[in-house]
Amino acid sequence: MKIDIYATHNSVQEKDLKDKTVVVADVFRATTTIITALHNGCREVIPVADIEDAIAFSRNYDKNAYLLGGERNVHKIDGFDLSNSPSEYMRETVEGRTIIMTTTNGTKAVRKTHDAKEVLIAGFVNVDIVASYLAKINDDVAFVCAGTDGKFSLEDILAVGAMLSKLKSMGKELELDDLGFVCVRIFEMYRKDIKEFLKETTHYKRLVNEKLEHDIDKCLDLNSIPVLPEYRDGVVRLKVKAH
Amino acid sequence: MKIDIYATHNSVQEKDLKDKTVVVADVFRATTTIITALHNGCREVIPVADIEDAIAFSRNYDKNAYLLGGERNVHKIDGFDLSNSPSEYMRETVEGRTIIMTTTNGTKAVRKTHDAKEVLIAGFVNVDIVASYLAKINDDVAFVCAGTDGKFSLEDILAVGAMLSKLKSMGKELELDDLGFVCVRIFEMYRKDIKEFLKETTHYKRLVNEKLEHDIDKCLDLNSIPVLPEYRDGVVRLKVKAH
Repeated sequence: MKIDIYATHNSVQEKDLKDKTVVVADVFRATTTIITALHNGCREVIPVADIEDAIAFSRNYDKNAYLLGGERNVHKIDGFDLSNSPSEYMRETVEGRTIIMTTTNGTKAVRKTHDAKEVLIAGFVNVDIVASYLAKINDDVAFVCAGTDGKFSLEDILAVGAMLSKLKSMGKELELDDLGFVCVRIFEMYRKDIKEFLKETTHYKRLVNEKLEHDIDKCLDLNSIPVLPEYRDGVVRLKVKAH
Repeated sequence: MKIDIYATHNSVQEKDLKDKTVVVADVFRATTTIITALHNGCREVIPVADIEDAIAFSRNYDKNAYLLGGERNVHKIDGFDLSNSPSEYMRETVEGRTIIMTTTNGTKAVRKTHDAKEVLIAGFVNVDIVASYLAKINDDVAFVCAGTDGKFSLEDILAVGAMLSKLKSMGKELELDDLGFVCVRIFEMYRKDIKEFLKETTHYKRLVNEKLEHDIDKCLDLNSIPVLPEYRDGVVRLKVKAH
């Protein structure tokens, strides 16, 4: 399997992903939140790029059928129902509803994949189920990390490393570029204490400053939500449910 | 000191580097070759982006005053005097001459720095002298790695890690982004056997395939050429000579 990795959403063009199997990761926090919401019974998540698009889109729905979620620079958006914290996306809030969501980096990354063959949504919380699915289809894979404000973000790189490491442990031969090689090496080296390793990194420190350390714990909880969300035709829904 | 790192020449714009102190690294092989040539007494190195520009530029010089050097996709360019192998830039060949040079990635990276305050040319061969100079001027620094064909290239990342690690060992407080954090961690982890660590990486394997392993040894020879080349007004010359 040939593996390509894009460290930020703005380092990849839609044409690079055309007809590819793509995995999008924005560990802190968009993809973790999407996975959590779908696991807790929300009908679907619609990622949109802009606040205005989110509000315009919501006009297609009955008042009780949708929720507006997301953030700009970690903060909840004025007039929105939910922020980008996975702990707000509990069953009593999201069940049966459509979530229209916009975040600073993650939803932009998802929307770059419009012409892909297949798009999976990943985080630490669903590493093994994503890797197992990739092993089964045995196709080349492009991993798109959201990054943070156009820069390399270590938590996303480690999550990609976790998926690649799992693929290797299942006996898959991976053709890695240098960034893929780094992803695997640093994940395997620090897998026993990812949280400690991330303590000096940019996005981690920003979340701690905003008193969102409980979100960090949820986002780094390896394989805690074994579901497989798929983005198709502009909407994220569950593809396979493990349990 | 605030440290910014660009992993590839196409991830940085000239405006990002305006009025900054910049260090350019293309370990395999452009910056190593430039450092070698200047150490061996060449008058100056003029990095140009295109083959046509190199030939046009050479018309300004007497026949014996210049040499055309460089490569495209590792190979020597038709009609050029030298390839991009540091071992060709020995004293008997280059002394007193101007080298007009174009390479696939490295010279493009150098030319992105036109509006910078100061530009240093670095590789493993001059890590300590570059780091010592940066410590002395105590300014924020942008490191520009050439990368390989638009992708992250591990040998450049490790050379940046070596410079940052040296700055830390001199007591400098570094404000690192996530990529800087990775550079330091992996350099410090693998510093005892950089060559072994690089054996699975893209550019290394390409050089081995082209029977250029002797170039790899020269390019990874830490602090073997303690000179400080500076790019200014379109030309690279020695700034300070350690011995």
